Amino acid sequence: MEVKVARQYGFCFGVRRAIQIADELSAPLTTYGPLVHNPYEVSRLEGKGVKSSLDIQEIKTPNILVRAHGITPSVMEELKLKGKVIDGTCPLVKKVHGIAQMLDKNGYKILIFGQKSHPETIGTQGYIGNRADVIHNTQEAENFSGDYDKIALISQTTEIIGEFNEVVAILLKKYPHLRVIDTICEPTKENQNAAVELAKESDLVVVVGGKNSSNTRKLMLNCEKITRAVHIESPEELDKLDFSGVKILGLTSGASTPDWLFDKVVIKAKELAK
Amino acid sequence: MEVKVARQYGFCFGVRRAIQIADELSAPLTTYGPLVHNPYEVSRLEGKGVKSSLDIQEIKTPNILVRAHGITPSVMEELKLKGKVIDGTCPLVKKVHGIAQMLDKNGYKILIFGQKSHPETIGTQGYIGNRADVIHNTQEAENFSGDYDKIALISQTTEIIGEFNEVVAILLKKYPHLRVIDTICEPTKENQNAAVELAKESDLVVVVGGKNSSNTRKLMLNCEKITRAVHIESPEELDKLDFSGVKILGLTSGASTPDWLFDKVVIKAKELAK
Repeated sequence: MEVKVARQYGFCFGVRRAIQIADELSAPLTTYGPLVHNPYEVSRLEGKGVKSSLDIQEIKTPNILVRAHGITPSVMEELKLKGKVIDGTCPLVKKVHGIAQMLDKNGYKILIFGQKSHPETIGTQGYIGNRADVIHNTQEAENFSGDYDKIALISQTTEIIGEFNEVVAILLKKYPHLRVIDTICEPTKENQNAAVELAKESDLVVVVGGKNSSNTRKLMLNCEKITRAVHIESPEELDKLDFSGVKILGLTSGASTPDWLFDKVVIKAKELAK
Repeated sequence: MEVKVARQYGFCFGVRRAIQIADELSAPLTTYGPLVHNPYEVSRLEGKGVKSSLDIQEIKTPNILVRAHGITPSVMEELKLKGKVIDGTCPLVKKVHGIAQMLDKNGYKILIFGQKSHPETIGTQGYIGNRADVIHNTQEAENFSGDYDKIALISQTTEIIGEFNEVVAILLKKYPHLRVIDTICEPTKENQNAAVELAKESDLVVVVGGKNSSNTRKLMLNCEKITRAVHIESPEELDKLDFSGVKILGLTSGASTPDWLFDKVVIKAKELAK
């Protein structure tokens, strides 16, 4: 069995940046919500004195770090009353806030392709008075209606381009004047493209990432369309996998998976492959 | 006959800004190409000592103004060797340069919806080593082919949103992973929307603007789909029009048409309507 690693995987630069800030700031520090959707990385940070809380009243540390997903302006104000706020919002997410505000100011009905309950979408909504509708799949796009002279579609930065464009195609039939601004970020696209390339040459792809990580699940979905794929959180889970018939084993990881964890999976996989 | 004026018409803020710069700068001044595609405004500026030239070697004035359409970086360098360059490039066009560069840097094949020979598109191409393909209509979109993992579509800022989206729909069939970034500017859309609203309630729409103005021609095309429409350059041309059966006369003007000229048309139309 040969082990192949995707040409691009793991932390996007926004997450890397937020974690670097957490590592460099002297604890005690609280992050507003878990810094990444990965239990191992969160636990590593906890070991260094980095707490996580979504309950503002519970925050007792002088330093508060906003994670890469971003927050609403009103949560930002509340946090500022509690301590010194360090903004770890991904610059690419900040760009989306700016685009949403520009569209809103210019009278557009805004549709966001994404998940209503995802922190990034909640944050973006906060910049436009929650006036956007959130569409999560083609069915919701089919069901969407209303008479809008000005209507625009943007995306959560971590969505899948193919699915975004399926929604575009449906909406264009109803709104030929739809303004489409594809705000899916480059690092997300790069990880997805690399995963697809890897899947094409692998008999099995192992995707490493938190079970609560939406972008890891999406990598998994992309791979599953092409070959056999499994989603694991830790190196130990490799032991339970069935490698029969696997000549090439592909390995990749989501944007919230730390390299130190992925590297352990690679080492263990190479041992198993011997 | 009642005369109605569009709720939005005329100079976009980018053109207004470039003309204001020309008016405020002390002559002698040369603009690199006519500042607007309108012979009357160009002639007014000439009266103030503002020359226009596209032949860099011919430029003899100490001050050189770059018009709203923008230029390539290499033309900018050449101009700088000739005199003091004042950059009148529209900030919204500059944004498109930035988006094109970002896409190019990230390995995208870029398609520009626009006109190959339009100064704005020539300028944008200059920022990406002329690597973009320019698509001007649905037929060219149908004919476009090639195998691209990363492909993106942007637009000249002055295009028609409905036509842009027809091209989007065609390209999405070939490239489900197409990245669509609608860069048509708000002022263009506002003029177009207002013209369409006006056309819906008018028996005849008179569109005022230079015969060489691409955005004026597009306003005209939008109106023609709905009602009778004519394109004139000067108030005198009103005399030649047939107003029989016209109960409501709509008036609008392109983004390169100065208000002083449009106002003359409005006054004359109101006299004729008495």
